[in-house]
Amino acid sequence: MTRKGILFVISGPSGVGKGTVREALLKVRDDIEVSVSATTRPPRPGEIDGVDYFFIDRETFMKRVKENQFLEWANVYSNYYGTPREFVLNHLKNGRDVLLEIDIQGALQVKQKMPEGVFIFLSPPSIEDLAKRLCQRGKDSQESIEERLAACTQEMEQMIYYDYVVVNDQVENAVTKVNAIITAERCRIKNLELG
Amino acid sequence: MTRKGILFVISGPSGVGKGTVREALLKVRDDIEVSVSATTRPPRPGEIDGVDYFFIDRETFMKRVKENQFLEWANVYSNYYGTPREFVLNHLKNGRDVLLEIDIQGALQVKQKMPEGVFIFLSPPSIEDLAKRLCQRGKDSQESIEERLAACTQEMEQMIYYDYVVVNDQVENAVTKVNAIITAERCRIKNLELG
Repeated sequence: MTRKGILFVISGPSGVGKGTVREALLKVRDDIEVSVSATTRPPRPGEIDGVDYFFIDRETFMKRVKENQFLEWANVYSNYYGTPREFVLNHLKNGRDVLLEIDIQGALQVKQKMPEGVFIFLSPPSIEDLAKRLCQRGKDSQESIEERLAACTQEMEQMIYYDYVVVNDQVENAVTKVNAIITAERCRIKNLELG
Repeated sequence: MTRKGILFVISGPSGVGKGTVREALLKVRDDIEVSVSATTRPPRPGEIDGVDYFFIDRETFMKRVKENQFLEWANVYSNYYGTPREFVLNHLKNGRDVLLEIDIQGALQVKQKMPEGVFIFLSPPSIEDLAKRLCQRGKDSQESIEERLAACTQEMEQMIYYDYVVVNDQVENAVTKVNAIITAERCRIKNLELG
């Protein structure tokens, strides 16, 4: 019984902890290809080019947009983010699973193009919790935090377009659930090549 | 975010190891209500009335059939098996998940009545493996084994009506997968009460 490559998309409001969950997931699971996004946002301390993101300038980004090199791209809080198309499609074609960790705008674009993907909404336990989290990570200005919280309420409404909701109350709980979703989806009849 | 009770049905060809997987699963998971079937088959050594099955005579069984007390019932290799309806419906109504471990005939009956259930097909790695398994468990006559193997080929075709396929190559692998399916289904949007 062989299997098709499955596209997994982890997404959710800004600051919910998508990157942390992805990182912790990859410590327990190495049988999935992780797409690295391109971005025009400057690197945060500790972020590595080619690992966390491909850091490129706006001109290069727009050139790639024109060349249709992105599966999805979005402008999130004045920075551009994009998912390299070739990487994703080639791995899926070869029967490998691919993981994207992207914002909600991007996820909804991917869903239109690849509705057979598995869309996981990472949710904060509450808006209050998200506020605390954004303050604690200390990467954002007060203004930016307020802008993100306002957006979050609206973003939570996009949840209904996803297949799964995982509440990120504690990273290890969220990772257990995302890990289970990957294992389960690989057993789904619709993802198997029967006969 | 509350959740609806989910009905999980583990099913598969006779001899594939459904009972063993169920038992091992319950050692790692106690947050699910396990339905105990009624049967007219005599207890095998070690089986306990009310735990493995409710062992009842044919007359009592048929009386319950007439009273519509079974969610499904089937005649499998000259013995009757049935799932008590009240137990299942009451727990689901109260938001509890329920696990059924039943034969393929029964599972397809349940699917017609409750298509929103989660149907897991437990498959042998191969027909040869199933033959070995049936011989090793020493519970069946040579004639019974041949009958079961002939049926298995046909039963494997019913797989397409299920949501998931779990290959029972090793009990611990199968349990990990069924366990993941339960965790994942609890995160599915369609099983959550949003808003």
